[in-house]
Amino acid sequence: MSMPLNPALAATFAPPVMEARRWLEGVTFPPDRPLINVSQAAPVDPPPEPLRRAIAEAALHRPEAHLYGPVLGNPDLREALAESFSEAYGGRIEAAEVAITQGCNQAFCAAMATLAGPGDQVILPTPWYFNHKMWLDMGGVEALPLPCGDDLLPDPDRAAAMIGPRTRAIVLVTPNNPSGAEYPAALVARFHEIAAQAGIALVLDETYRDFDSRSGPPHGLLAAPGWQGTVIQLYSFSKAYRLTGHRVGAVVAGTARLAQIEKFLDTVSISTSQLGQIGALWGLRNLGPWLAGEREEILARRAASAEALGALDGWRVKSVGAYFAWIEHPLAESSAELARRMVREIGVLALPGTMFTPEGDPVGPRHLRIAFANVDAAGIGQLAERLGELGR
Amino acid sequence: MSMPLNPALAATFAPPVMEARRWLEGVTFPPDRPLINVSQAAPVDPPPEPLRRAIAEAALHRPEAHLYGPVLGNPDLREALAESFSEAYGGRIEAAEVAITQGCNQAFCAAMATLAGPGDQVILPTPWYFNHKMWLDMGGVEALPLPCGDDLLPDPDRAAAMIGPRTRAIVLVTPNNPSGAEYPAALVARFHEIAAQAGIALVLDETYRDFDSRSGPPHGLLAAPGWQGTVIQLYSFSKAYRLTGHRVGAVVAGTARLAQIEKFLDTVSISTSQLGQIGALWGLRNLGPWLAGEREEILARRAASAEALGALDGWRVKSVGAYFAWIEHPLAESSAELARRMVREIGVLALPGTMFTPEGDPVGPRHLRIAFANVDAAGIGQLAERLGELGR
Repeated sequence: MSMPLNPALAATFAPPVMEARRWLEGVTFPPDRPLINVSQAAPVDPPPEPLRRAIAEAALHRPEAHLYGPVLGNPDLREALAESFSEAYGGRIEAAEVAITQGCNQAFCAAMATLAGPGDQVILPTPWYFNHKMWLDMGGVEALPLPCGDDLLPDPDRAAAMIGPRTRAIVLVTPNNPSGAEYPAALVARFHEIAAQAGIALVLDETYRDFDSRSGPPHGLLAAPGWQGTVIQLYSFSKAYRLTGHRVGAVVAGTARLAQIEKFLDTVSISTSQLGQIGALWGLRNLGPWLAGEREEILARRAASAEALGALDGWRVKSVGAYFAWIEHPLAESSAELARRMVREIGVLALPGTMFTPEGDPVGPRHLRIAFANVDAAGIGQLAERLGELGR
Repeated sequence: MSMPLNPALAATFAPPVMEARRWLEGVTFPPDRPLINVSQAAPVDPPPEPLRRAIAEAALHRPEAHLYGPVLGNPDLREALAESFSEAYGGRIEAAEVAITQGCNQAFCAAMATLAGPGDQVILPTPWYFNHKMWLDMGGVEALPLPCGDDLLPDPDRAAAMIGPRTRAIVLVTPNNPSGAEYPAALVARFHEIAAQAGIALVLDETYRDFDSRSGPPHGLLAAPGWQGTVIQLYSFSKAYRLTGHRVGAVVAGTARLAQIEKFLDTVSISTSQLGQIGALWGLRNLGPWLAGEREEILARRAASAEALGALDGWRVKSVGAYFAWIEHPLAESSAELARRMVREIGVLALPGTMFTPEGDPVGPRHLRIAFANVDAAGIGQLAERLGELGR
């Protein structure tokens, strides 16, 4: 007899990014036509040299860089992020309202663990971020899909109509993964109103906020008194400072909520990597101008992607922003098959829409997510060219 | 109206180590009589200089040290740990049977998530490790306490009698936290027999195995074919190489189990800190002799603790090993009050037994956990002296 398997874990799907990597096994790409990898939303270059040096010096000379820190994060980083958020959102966020986590995925898990248990429901706009769905599955929480329109924006009135006695939260990812859509401030405010009225949480995942094309605060929620009663905001240092390998994210929430989140983090992580926190703090303090340049480059790639992909016969760019384009393909097969065929036939690795939509959803099979952020303008041109070659 | 709170999270307790730290607030310790902190099971010194240098060099010169790695860990570290385990336990453990996690707490969470869901049960010997109990609480899993005897060893027959249709696993921590007890190989084998027969898992947390006083393999389970059907073993690099601030642990399990664990890790962590993994690998490859010296020192402190605490009038050392002594105090009050009074009156911070036992359990109030590993022989003498001063 073999040991038991928790059915909730058995029921959720395998990590999509790992699955996509396996499609590469046994496929060779000619040197003059290397793989174009637009599958993962992650920088491929390390952080700038001075940040790497700051981490290296801490490793050598700061003993505490190797030892446990406080569960909710180092006070200096919490303070610096609180200041940065206060400035960016026009409110007054306290250091005590910031917790540091081992990446933004963990920030989401921690926040949701405090909100919803088995049999509860959480509203997720679709296409959704697959790890959000996986976490809810594992905890026996029902994800209620809220299909976005053709503009990739979720409809607040439709969300309001879905809220029942067991609904605990609405989750918005903006700029969105996988669609790149930047949710207008007024739309976010409307969702907040609905959540506040229903006494449920509004969880805002702003992992990609540093690459938002708009200037000024992306929403006004944190500037209004009492936001702590409804809003939990999530952030990641991974994209801004190229620290994906260090796992540093954050939760902004009221102190009572953070006391609950502390229980989760103590049990799952104890504390976040000290060197990661040191790197994140160094980035926050010193890389503002550098990050502005990075943002300009991403926005240029976004424009190049919109143009090159938009010019493809029969293809349609539905939404573009942050690291992503969400595109509709003209081919007969489902994106699930198409994505595998693209690896073999044109040397392109992209995630199919089916990885971001519920089973049986009609949208997933028709779409692909293109994570263009790591491909320069020339590469984007080649990508479009190769997509155009795909046999029907 | 305010947002919801998951009752399972609300019901579990706050992080004990964080709570104990708060007892220090507002208390001053004279320079000639500084605080003796025996509350946390963690090194207070950084890793040896060459390991710190290896991390610093990677931070400077290895781009991939800043980027995402595979969800289940870096192949080189998995391979090295598989070899080290194969040698230590006398079996043949494959790299594919090892996963790297953000610390051993996370290894436990991941393993349990694949085994048990809401309404299921897991057998935990008491006194237990509080984070194990917290994780089960959060998931709605019932922890069935299996009270240890006066020798701090759990009774396998008693465990066998507790197994019902919803029981999913037995968890053994050896050497034990909080008691330090080293479970005899025959006892572990007996638990394995019971678990295998019942078709449930035996989860072995060996965070402190590098400080076991015995030579040779602590158990023979991994040398017997088919162990993958019953055993999940957990390990930590934190104590051996003083890497607590990097969060690196491991799970050893069958590949089918690791495929489930991969879902959990992908969602909660994405990957483990690269610099932490690089440090752990460097330690595994180079710090064998250094670690042997560390073990000798811990064993010397253990002997000093057993002697000094055992000589105290009315106190009793029930068990000692790894980083810990589990001692019975002669005072009238519960350890929960005593521990706070010790901070104020004698400048000693230790965790009360009540933090390691179920509510209402008679054992917790009579005991204290002394994490002696960070206190040298002179300090252990002072600790005993101060305990002797405690007014009744």
